[in-house]
Amino acid sequence: MKFIAIQGEKGSYSEIAAKSYFGKKIEISNSFSFKELFDKVKRKNVDYGLIPIENSLYGSVLDSLDLLQKNSLKIVGEINLQITHNLLSTKKYKSSQIESIYSHPQALAQCSVFLDSLKNVKLIPSYDTAGSSKNLRENNQGKKAIIASKEAASIYGLKIIKSNIQNKKKNFTRFLVISNKPINPKIKRPKSSISIELKSIPGALHKALSVFALREIDLVKIESRPLPDKPFQYLFYIDFIGNLKDQNIKQALKHLKEISISIKIFGTYEFGKFIYN
Amino acid sequence: MKFIAIQGEKGSYSEIAAKSYFGKKIEISNSFSFKELFDKVKRKNVDYGLIPIENSLYGSVLDSLDLLQKNSLKIVGEINLQITHNLLSTKKYKSSQIESIYSHPQALAQCSVFLDSLKNVKLIPSYDTAGSSKNLRENNQGKKAIIASKEAASIYGLKIIKSNIQNKKKNFTRFLVISNKPINPKIKRPKSSISIELKSIPGALHKALSVFALREIDLVKIESRPLPDKPFQYLFYIDFIGNLKDQNIKQALKHLKEISISIKIFGTYEFGKFIYN
Repeated sequence: MKFIAIQGEKGSYSEIAAKSYFGKKIEISNSFSFKELFDKVKRKNVDYGLIPIENSLYGSVLDSLDLLQKNSLKIVGEINLQITHNLLSTKKYKSSQIESIYSHPQALAQCSVFLDSLKNVKLIPSYDTAGSSKNLRENNQGKKAIIASKEAASIYGLKIIKSNIQNKKKNFTRFLVISNKPINPKIKRPKSSISIELKSIPGALHKALSVFALREIDLVKIESRPLPDKPFQYLFYIDFIGNLKDQNIKQALKHLKEISISIKIFGTYEFGKFIYN
Repeated sequence: MKFIAIQGEKGSYSEIAAKSYFGKKIEISNSFSFKELFDKVKRKNVDYGLIPIENSLYGSVLDSLDLLQKNSLKIVGEINLQITHNLLSTKKYKSSQIESIYSHPQALAQCSVFLDSLKNVKLIPSYDTAGSSKNLRENNQGKKAIIASKEAASIYGLKIIKSNIQNKKKNFTRFLVISNKPINPKIKRPKSSISIELKSIPGALHKALSVFALREIDLVKIESRPLPDKPFQYLFYIDFIGNLKDQNIKQALKHLKEISISIKIFGTYEFGKFIYN
């Protein structure tokens, strides 16, 4: 039995992702915040943590990125989950009757087209989608609704008022599996992640990307995040194709060190599968 | 008299930034959302809009970035405002007595160290810092507090329970001034902004940055945002030093077009001053 920390309640998208990645025989440790989740993994209260890192419509989950940098945990896996949002309530109201809608800010943003079409509805950001279902069940007053998964509807006994309310059908959230130590399985389609703080020299980022381009290492993603002590200077998160054990990647990182103030290596893992639901 | 649209209420940081940039003789048009603000500028209901684009601790304001891309407005100015957050309430409570705190999610994040030190306090994200002050004044029940500017305290008659509660003293928000058309003043320290969607070719981003590096054009910032119709592919926002009228920059953009699917040009403007308070 594996113990997996996620952020959110039963029926959350993180739980669906965890079951898709590890299979159903896992014990989930629900966490209120990402910080609590990272702490559980660091203290080895759980075997792994699973965090949302990026949504294909809304972009990176900034808290997850920042906590990866602050903590010295390794990325050991990845999974991409198709997200289908649904409007749920305790009774079978019409969408037009609903007075207020609770959900996670990212879920509200991913359904903005549908939500904009409703008149006089109050949108209330809350800490997670499934947690909102639980609150709705417990404080059942007025014509309130939430946005969550179909799984949350069945767990909390809610009616589906409208299904598939997300802006785009192609809506995926990428989750990372994090652990105390790197894994060493056979990796067929390896992907690696690092972060770098570059020296303040002209063309620094161009030079850093040359390190990869010169060796024909393909970048998958680059994301900048602020350096808190240096206003308007940045840390770069870079995902690339390849295994940290490969000779050309070892050379690339050696080269990168020459032009960096610091490099953090998160690990090599298998490219995430896409799970449709 | 100039008419300026901002997001938020009287006493918001956006209002302080607008007065710092344009002087006090302006008429402010308060907007509930960024979308409403952009619409006012597009329909010429106002002369300019002023939007927060980036905080030096927490990073980019994603809604502002995405609306810049969706709308065809120009960036005509910039200002950097030092942000000092304060815990405010209707009575002179002690910090430890406060039961719930309302503020904008970015303000809550910027004060996370102080907030983590409080026990059993409920943090409630709300649509803006000054708007929370107004609500607190109007629904005065329980030991509630908000995080906002000193200006908001004086406008809404609130007591300062604790001042300067942000994580770092070096906390700046960068605001952009947007308009229907580019300006053409004499610009001493020019900065320009564009966004590009690159072709899916190996080393595409490296090639794009070469366009600047080859001409010794300094990049100030690069930020990636998801392309909604292409999961896990990205649009890049690039800020660089120089005027779009300069010959080397014209050449650079011509070169960039060869490797891009699309380029959007937001304009040239004066590097933002730093305003301390």
